[in-house]
Amino acid sequence: MGLIVQKFGGTSVGNIEKIKHIATRVIEEAAQGNEVVVVVSAMGKTTDELVRMANEISNTPSKREMDMLLSTGEQVTISILTMALLEKGYEAVSFTGWQAGIQAESIHGNARILDIDTNRVCEQLSAGKIVVVAGFQGVDTSGEIMTLGRGGSDTTAVALAAALKAKRCDIYTDVTGVYTTDPRFVKSARKLQSISYDEMLELANLGAGVLHPRAVEFAKNYGIPLVVRSSIEQEQGTIIEEEVTMEENLIVRGIAFEDSITRVSIFGLTGRLTSLSTIFTTLARQHLNVDIIIQSITDTGTTNLTFSIKTKDVREVLNVLESNKKELQFERIETESELAKVSIVGSGMVSNPGVAAEMFAILADAGIQVKMVSTSEIKVSTVIPDKDMVQAVETLHVQFQLDERMVVKA
Amino acid sequence: MGLIVQKFGGTSVGNIEKIKHIATRVIEEAAQGNEVVVVVSAMGKTTDELVRMANEISNTPSKREMDMLLSTGEQVTISILTMALLEKGYEAVSFTGWQAGIQAESIHGNARILDIDTNRVCEQLSAGKIVVVAGFQGVDTSGEIMTLGRGGSDTTAVALAAALKAKRCDIYTDVTGVYTTDPRFVKSARKLQSISYDEMLELANLGAGVLHPRAVEFAKNYGIPLVVRSSIEQEQGTIIEEEVTMEENLIVRGIAFEDSITRVSIFGLTGRLTSLSTIFTTLARQHLNVDIIIQSITDTGTTNLTFSIKTKDVREVLNVLESNKKELQFERIETESELAKVSIVGSGMVSNPGVAAEMFAILADAGIQVKMVSTSEIKVSTVIPDKDMVQAVETLHVQFQLDERMVVKA
Repeated sequence: MGLIVQKFGGTSVGNIEKIKHIATRVIEEAAQGNEVVVVVSAMGKTTDELVRMANEISNTPSKREMDMLLSTGEQVTISILTMALLEKGYEAVSFTGWQAGIQAESIHGNARILDIDTNRVCEQLSAGKIVVVAGFQGVDTSGEIMTLGRGGSDTTAVALAAALKAKRCDIYTDVTGVYTTDPRFVKSARKLQSISYDEMLELANLGAGVLHPRAVEFAKNYGIPLVVRSSIEQEQGTIIEEEVTMEENLIVRGIAFEDSITRVSIFGLTGRLTSLSTIFTTLARQHLNVDIIIQSITDTGTTNLTFSIKTKDVREVLNVLESNKKELQFERIETESELAKVSIVGSGMVSNPGVAAEMFAILADAGIQVKMVSTSEIKVSTVIPDKDMVQAVETLHVQFQLDERMVVKA
Repeated sequence: MGLIVQKFGGTSVGNIEKIKHIATRVIEEAAQGNEVVVVVSAMGKTTDELVRMANEISNTPSKREMDMLLSTGEQVTISILTMALLEKGYEAVSFTGWQAGIQAESIHGNARILDIDTNRVCEQLSAGKIVVVAGFQGVDTSGEIMTLGRGGSDTTAVALAAALKAKRCDIYTDVTGVYTTDPRFVKSARKLQSISYDEMLELANLGAGVLHPRAVEFAKNYGIPLVVRSSIEQEQGTIIEEEVTMEENLIVRGIAFEDSITRVSIFGLTGRLTSLSTIFTTLARQHLNVDIIIQSITDTGTTNLTFSIKTKDVREVLNVLESNKKELQFERIETESELAKVSIVGSGMVSNPGVAAEMFAILADAGIQVKMVSTSEIKVSTVIPDKDMVQAVETLHVQFQLDERMVVKA
C-alpha cells in the first residue's frame, strides 16, 4: 500500500487501443490498494502534427504560442485515459498542468518545475480517485502555460512523486528496462535489476535515451526510486535508486556508445586565455555541444586544443572558429570525422583506480586505436574510429563480464 | 477608435488557409486604430473528431472529461491565429477561457458565463496587443474547465464585449447578414440593414440559426450592438441593436419557418390541473420541446389540449403521455404530422393590432389552411400544412412588402 506515480510516454498512448491497454496497467496498481497518480504525454504523432500546423503559419512561431498549442496534446490524452478508467468502473479525474499545481519557470519551451501545489491532487486521491495529470507542462506565476522541453513528462512524474512523497515512480516505456548496453547492437546485452542514480545519469547523458537526465537528477535529489519498465510486457523492469544491491554491484554496470563524432583540433593558439572561454561560450549559445576537451601546452609555449563534437555540427563549429580567428590567434584547425564515443559507467570505479587502464588494455588488445580519453569518477569515455565501435562495445561487454549474470525475469 | 470584439466560428477557421485569411480581417480593424479582441471556435471538424475519439472509449463519456477534451479545440485555434497575426507583424497574444478570466457555472457541457475578470485582457490591450480568446469555454470557482454548450462562442464574444464595454461585437459567419427570410427558399429575400434585439431573438428562437439566442439576450441586456457579417465577403452586415432606424422600421421585419412539425391533441382530459404541469415538466426533462400550446374547455366540462412538437420526437412524446395516462385521465390522443410553422416577426406589431388578422387573410386568400395560431407582442406563428410552407412564406414576403427595399450593399 502506498502512493505510486506512473508515467506513460507518447508511444504507450499512441492510439485509443493503446490507451485502453494503459488503463488496465493503471488499474492493476489501484486494485492492489495503492493510490495512483498517472502522468501522460501527448498521443503518438500529435505533437508532430501540431508542430506541422504551426510551421504552415511561420518558420519561427512564437514560443509562447507554441506552448499554448502543444500543451493541448497532453490535455487530450488525460481526458481520454480518464474516460477509459471511468468506463472500467474506476473513479478517476484528469488535471492539466495548471490544475495539478505544477509551477514552472517563465521559460517557454524549456521551463523547469519550480514547485508543485499538491492540494487539488491530494483532495482527489483522498476521495479515492485515480488522478491523471498532463505531463510536459506547467504554469508560471502570471498564469502563462509553459512546456518543460524534452523529457518533460518524465520530470513531471518524478516531481509529482517527490511532492506527494510517493513510494515509487514507474516510468513505462517501449523498452523493458535499462540494459548493460544497447541490445540492438550487442546480443549479449542484459537487463539490469538495479542501477544507481549517478550511473543512470552518466548513461542518460551518454545517449542511452531511456530516461531524461533532468528526471533522474530530480529523483536523486528527492530519493524517489524510479522503475523503468515496459508498457506492453509484464516483466519486471530496472529500479534506479541510491543504494544498489551488492549482488548487482559490478565495477562496470553499463556501456554507452554513440557514432558520428568529429574531433576538432586547434593548433598553435597564442591568444589570451579568455579567448578560450569566449569560444566555448559562443559555441554553447549556438547550441553546439562540445563534449571531451583536451588542452596541451607545447614546447614553444603555444597551446593546442582538441575537443569532440557531433559530426552534423562541424560546419557551424568551423564557422564560429573562423569568425573568431583574429581574437583566438591560432595557426590552423584540423578535423577528423568518422569517429565514435564508447564509455564505460559504474559507481564501483571510484574505489577501483585501475579500471581506465584495463579499458585501454582491452581496446589495445583488440587493435583499436584510442584517439581521445576523458574520465570522471564513475565513467571512462574514449573516442575511437567509427568502424570499430560495435567491436569495442562487444569486447568490453565480455571482458567486464557484463554478459555473465542471469537475465532478470519477472 | 474604440474597442471591437470579433467572433469567428468553426467554418471561418476551418483550416490553416482560412485562419490566415481571418488574420487579415482582424488586422483591418486593428489598422484603423481600434483595440481588438478576437473570439474563435475550434477549427472545422475538430470537435467532431474529438467526440468520435471519446465515443471509441465510451457511449456515455463523463461530461467533465468531455469538457477537458473539447476545450483543447479552441486552444489550438487561438494559438494558430495568434501566430498568424504575429507573422504579419502585429503584436498579439492568446488566452484560454480560464486565462481570459471567464468564470462560468459548474455545469459541464452547458455552463453559462457568470462573470469576466478582464484584468489580463485589459493589460494586454493596453500594451497594444490584439487579444485572441478561446470561445465556448470558461472555468468555475474550483478551477474546473466548463464548456458553454451550443452557441457558446457567440456568448463568449458578447460577454467579453459587455465586460470590456466594447463599442461593437462583430459576429463573422458564413452568411452575409440577417435576411427577411431564408434566401435558399425565397429568392426575393433581402438582407436587413438593422434589426432589434427582440426581433432577432424571435427569429433566432424560430430557427433562423444565425446567432445563438443566449448571445442576443446578453447583447440586449448590456446594450452591445451586434453585427452579423460574412468572414469571406467584404460587404456590410446586419446590425442588431435596441433602436432600429425609422427607414427600416417595417411592421414585419422577417419571416421564419420550419418544417417537420407534428400536432398532438389530447381529448377529454378530466385530470386535475396539476397533471398538465406534470406532463410538460416531464417532456421538458426528456428534452422534448413543446412549442405552441392551445387549451380549450368543452361544453361537457372536459379539457382538450393541443400542442406542436418536432416530428422526430413523436414516438417519445407519445410514450410519455401513455405512461402518464392514469394520472392525466384523458380519452384519446390524436396526432397530425406533415405540418410546418410559419411566423412573422416585427416590433412594429406592438402598435399595429391588425397584423395577425392580415396574416390570416393573406393565407386564406392563398387557400392555405391554418391549423394552429400563437401570438406574442412582436410575433405571430401559424401551423400550416408542410406542402404549403414555401408558398406561404413567399406570399407573406410579398404582401408585407419585405422584397421592396433595396438590398443593402457595403
